[in-house]
Amino acid sequence: MENNKTIGILGGGQLGRMLIQQGINYGLITYVLDKDPNASCKDICNKFVVGDLLDFETVYQFGKMVDKLTIEIEHVNVDALLKLKSEGLQIIPDPEALKIIQDKGLQKAFYKENQIPTADFILLNNKSDLEKNSAFLPAFQKMRKLGYDGKGVTRIENLDNLTQAFDCESILEKYFDFEKEISVIVVSDGKGNLACYDPVELVFDPKYNLVDYLISPANIKPSIENEAKAIAKKVVEELNSPGIFAVELFLGKNNELLVNETAPRAHNSGHQTIEGNYSSQYDQQIRLLLGLPIGSVQAHSHSLMMNLIGEPKYSGKAKYEGIETVMAMEGIYVHLYGKLDTRPGRKMGHITIIGDDTANMIEQSKKIKQILKIKA
Amino acid sequence: MENNKTIGILGGGQLGRMLIQQGINYGLITYVLDKDPNASCKDICNKFVVGDLLDFETVYQFGKMVDKLTIEIEHVNVDALLKLKSEGLQIIPDPEALKIIQDKGLQKAFYKENQIPTADFILLNNKSDLEKNSAFLPAFQKMRKLGYDGKGVTRIENLDNLTQAFDCESILEKYFDFEKEISVIVVSDGKGNLACYDPVELVFDPKYNLVDYLISPANIKPSIENEAKAIAKKVVEELNSPGIFAVELFLGKNNELLVNETAPRAHNSGHQTIEGNYSSQYDQQIRLLLGLPIGSVQAHSHSLMMNLIGEPKYSGKAKYEGIETVMAMEGIYVHLYGKLDTRPGRKMGHITIIGDDTANMIEQSKKIKQILKIKA
Repeated sequence: MENNKTIGILGGGQLGRMLIQQGINYGLITYVLDKDPNASCKDICNKFVVGDLLDFETVYQFGKMVDKLTIEIEHVNVDALLKLKSEGLQIIPDPEALKIIQDKGLQKAFYKENQIPTADFILLNNKSDLEKNSAFLPAFQKMRKLGYDGKGVTRIENLDNLTQAFDCESILEKYFDFEKEISVIVVSDGKGNLACYDPVELVFDPKYNLVDYLISPANIKPSIENEAKAIAKKVVEELNSPGIFAVELFLGKNNELLVNETAPRAHNSGHQTIEGNYSSQYDQQIRLLLGLPIGSVQAHSHSLMMNLIGEPKYSGKAKYEGIETVMAMEGIYVHLYGKLDTRPGRKMGHITIIGDDTANMIEQSKKIKQILKIKA
Repeated sequence: MENNKTIGILGGGQLGRMLIQQGINYGLITYVLDKDPNASCKDICNKFVVGDLLDFETVYQFGKMVDKLTIEIEHVNVDALLKLKSEGLQIIPDPEALKIIQDKGLQKAFYKENQIPTADFILLNNKSDLEKNSAFLPAFQKMRKLGYDGKGVTRIENLDNLTQAFDCESILEKYFDFEKEISVIVVSDGKGNLACYDPVELVFDPKYNLVDYLISPANIKPSIENEAKAIAKKVVEELNSPGIFAVELFLGKNNELLVNETAPRAHNSGHQTIEGNYSSQYDQQIRLLLGLPIGSVQAHSHSLMMNLIGEPKYSGKAKYEGIETVMAMEGIYVHLYGKLDTRPGRKMGHITIIGDDTANMIEQSKKIKQILKIKA
């Protein structure tokens, strides 16, 4: 096992933080690059470098400092990664896969080329292209690059109201009236071995377009579960890259499955694997980096994961109102991300509930939502 | 919740490391003091101070840097803690409790005073005192101070062979032919609230006198379990201190229970609470430090914890032979302590196995022991 190697992580947010936390089990040496000098990872890594993830030189020089490189956010300078790869650095995921995923236009074309089911779409260069395609509405307009957590996505009903439309390279995606949204996390070692967690079901908070809570396993028929896993595996096989991939799918009213998008990294829809599964998504990422075998993706408990989101109207130094009451409840695990300041809708942490009765767990999560408020 | 406070930890070993790892969930700010510049905690705390834990001035000055102080090893300068306490610093555990536990003579006297069952003992000033008490043999001689992990303990059969006897202040403890050794971890918030994990059963490696593996829960009758918990609670109540306490007990052949010793901190016999219980011993310690309620001590799975010990005859930079094979097994969690060098018998990490069939788990641990070797 190569645990004397220095692992570089592009991005210093909560996903990196949970990766480093798990890495403590393996004596990992971690360097982190992030432009925010107060990023979540700052105080728990061996070396923290402040710099722009989208700048070629910054990413390239950071890559030269480490033995292996991984990401916790996909918005990074791929050209720098391609140069580092050509110079022999091991990078998880592969920069070529990252290039496809970073650009929603390329990503959608990739699905189409590989016969992976996805909603119909067209490419737009600007806002006036949108006006020429009114027949395609209602639809979602998505910025091709740098979208994140529902940002860079807007719903366009018709041409009467285009004030919120983006005037940049984007895709226009046919509106699909889905029943459920599910996510499948796939682990690939890049040598042909793949493992697939059971699908989880995402329930969104309409206010912020963020995952409100998710339940693992998803409440879907076994045939749908198998089909979702087969599609997710195909996505990752065709991407041809080692790494952790979260494949988000829509389940339609007639049981049809369409891929929404793929994240080439640990994902919000896999946080509950920390407490609910034998090997978490973070544990898998470390195993890949250290050349260890893929871990068991089996769940030992049912789980529910809920995001802890900054309350509307509060900005500033975070206070966790009601946390004492919540922490007296049984079977819950609190994860705070070490962010000093809250903002409306900001992801400040999450709670995982484990148990065996999903209905109870949903009740408990509703109770927690009423009690715990993140204010300033 | 006071998660903007700086927590000082006396000791930078694996117990501190797992405490800090869990503390990442709460955004803890941690300062660590240890005399070893390569201590396990070095790279994962906010500030690492190299210094002697037994030196008054070092401990006192470290205490002045933090908002709250805790320990991961009991061999620290208690006079400095008493002064810090008198100046208003919150210290977990209370220095008065630490003073009793640090000295095996005071500790045994404490049990006797409080009618807590423990093996008979006498106090010795030196080796010649031992010779005057031959009627007490066979017995264990234990150094009153600074014993650790079986060091500072020796078995004296008779006066014929005293070469390994200690010539210092010690206790001579009647040999007790026990059936099992069990451990009960008690959490006390210092305000009258106590919680007690189920007893675990320790199986020792005779070669190193270190825990070989433990199983949770212990395979004992419910009446014994209740009695063990009642004794452990009484110990902690009488110590009158907040903290995590591991009360180790001998179970005799006639079902009698005697307290062996108490550790005033997270303990090797509680590692498996990380994966097997809702709230781990480390989670509890953080809850106490942050003024949060005591967490659930319930186990959600059976567990087995085995120490990973440096192989005999190997000293130097550690290599984990066979770890790839072990990590392909299901339901196991590897914790390496980030120690660069191995030595014969050195605790380098541990593995927790969770499941529901104890016999299977013991089989699995034997397999792991054959495969995984820590060499240099």
